[in-house]
Amino acid sequence: MHIDAIQTPAVLIDMDRAEANLAMAQDLANDLGLGLRPHVKTHKLPGLARRQVALGAVGVTCQKLGEAEAMADGGLADIFLPYNILGAAKLDRLAALHGRVRLSVTADSAETVAGYAARFGPEAPLTVLVECDTGMGRCGVQSPEAALSLARQIDAAEGLHFGGLMTYPPLGHGPETNDWLTRAKALLEDAGLASEVISTGGTPDLLRAGQIPVATEYRPGTYVYSDRMQVAWGHGTLQDCAMTVLATVVSRPTPDRAVLDAGSKALAADTCGAPGFGHLPAYPDAVVTGLSEEHGVVDLSACTRKPEIGERLRIVPNHACVVSNLFDRVHLMRGDEVEEIAQVTSRGALT
Amino acid sequence: MHIDAIQTPAVLIDMDRAEANLAMAQDLANDLGLGLRPHVKTHKLPGLARRQVALGAVGVTCQKLGEAEAMADGGLADIFLPYNILGAAKLDRLAALHGRVRLSVTADSAETVAGYAARFGPEAPLTVLVECDTGMGRCGVQSPEAALSLARQIDAAEGLHFGGLMTYPPLGHGPETNDWLTRAKALLEDAGLASEVISTGGTPDLLRAGQIPVATEYRPGTYVYSDRMQVAWGHGTLQDCAMTVLATVVSRPTPDRAVLDAGSKALAADTCGAPGFGHLPAYPDAVVTGLSEEHGVVDLSACTRKPEIGERLRIVPNHACVVSNLFDRVHLMRGDEVEEIAQVTSRGALT
Repeated sequence: MHIDAIQTPAVLIDMDRAEANLAMAQDLANDLGLGLRPHVKTHKLPGLARRQVALGAVGVTCQKLGEAEAMADGGLADIFLPYNILGAAKLDRLAALHGRVRLSVTADSAETVAGYAARFGPEAPLTVLVECDTGMGRCGVQSPEAALSLARQIDAAEGLHFGGLMTYPPLGHGPETNDWLTRAKALLEDAGLASEVISTGGTPDLLRAGQIPVATEYRPGTYVYSDRMQVAWGHGTLQDCAMTVLATVVSRPTPDRAVLDAGSKALAADTCGAPGFGHLPAYPDAVVTGLSEEHGVVDLSACTRKPEIGERLRIVPNHACVVSNLFDRVHLMRGDEVEEIAQVTSRGALT
Repeated sequence: MHIDAIQTPAVLIDMDRAEANLAMAQDLANDLGLGLRPHVKTHKLPGLARRQVALGAVGVTCQKLGEAEAMADGGLADIFLPYNILGAAKLDRLAALHGRVRLSVTADSAETVAGYAARFGPEAPLTVLVECDTGMGRCGVQSPEAALSLARQIDAAEGLHFGGLMTYPPLGHGPETNDWLTRAKALLEDAGLASEVISTGGTPDLLRAGQIPVATEYRPGTYVYSDRMQVAWGHGTLQDCAMTVLATVVSRPTPDRAVLDAGSKALAADTCGAPGFGHLPAYPDAVVTGLSEEHGVVDLSACTRKPEIGERLRIVPNHACVVSNLFDRVHLMRGDEVEEIAQVTSRGALT
């Protein structure tokens, strides 16, 4: 199928660019001796995840149980789920998943560890890493001492295996993160606890992964597609962005205004360091100033050439991961030809 | 099923509140002699749309062809699609839909009208209203004179029927909108063109619908659920909000921080006049300060009582319509009991 036959709005993935992004990250990880464990939240496509593993990834990362279940269904065999899984229903699902794949999870509280400990037994221990807040201000234990305390609790549980440390560091804080993790690792070693895996992540800092030599694994997600947010944060350029949303100009109400058939239900309202809600490669001076649900309003006042009604154009979204989550399918493109229409898994199955 | 059996994150609809919202709007429209034509974009549920019609709505409004097709599948018989439908593939779909339901659409350009005129014939003319930009700055002709010009083009086409005028007015501009539409209606009448329908909309101005007496129909969408954005814009109170997202506290890393298992893939990153990304009725002083994809970070510093790990709580989202679009199903609740699990239609089928 040719691009002209695709109805808008639609997600296009430039596979040449995506493949270059995949190879770049795997090469970098190989050079650094890091295990690459790509985060599938960005694409939610088992096919792409299998390709990441074929290129050398040690496994994949998922952010929700539903995502992990979909990846297990899609043939992925080694899944890291860096999340506190709580409650009987989800622990049952976790146990079922544990029977199917090589699984590891995280905990950042005694409550979470107690839940795991009550559900898993010594016949098939669950590997649990301690999530560490090295400055991001999200989940995670607040100090190396707290990491030790939680690691001891995990190690003491018959049905659990202490797997190491995990963090999602704040942008540009590699050295501080390395210090934090190095102190924690040493504290744990002094207590006789080995950190088999020390996992860090984030596409924006991927090219600076060497700043955290204590780490053994890296979990980049967005790198496969990249997006405007990554570029604003210093990762690559707009030419690396493999995902675009194909839209149609449905209105040109004034000389300086175009309206696209892609709004917040296609592009998402996420903002980034750059102005507006997306970048139009064909009209680089255009600004997507506003999104309603099914309309994108574009200011053309800085453009010399301007699009016509009915014209189809591509938009590099601010945040690729949330766009994947808005579409049932994406078009994997080779140039202007559709190579495959891939179903996005675990969309709307967020539990 | 009891609320305790629902895995999080999940959408809950308080049906007592939703029914009160539906009745309020229908009563108001009846009092004003306005046809109510609810916008289904908010719920995307044929069952709720049928209920709106049963209560007295003259039909429904859809924002995308895919939404309209889903509503036709769901038994809705009178659909207004206020959008410029462009291109052969979509015009074919529009024609198929026209054969199934009483259909009307809009145009704001000669190009759009030309497309309709080329596709539809006199045996079954398509009703086309002129979209008017009365100040919103989105789609729409820019003046009553331009409305007349486009209405003449529609009227001159054998396969089209001029149906009237449509606008989405800017918040709080009822009187100016009424002036604009009154002038356009008079111009059209002088030219022998009757505006059978004059359609306006928007939940935030619903209670001021009487400020546009020239209108014959009103298209509110969000009123059925309401949300934090509507309340910030002056429509009702948080007690009218029927949609909440049920989430679990998965981490309490510091005394003043909680992390929920609902992030931007459940709540959406839309902002509104109030601080943060949602309101927690059980902790009204809490602020959802940040969303990553699967985490919501909550600042509890202003709270006297604070939630515990594993606690489940409800969040009133900023924007209900985009939340519906993120979930495959919603739980229609009667108190703490699930009355029905309803499938959200035309999610991810945005063309």
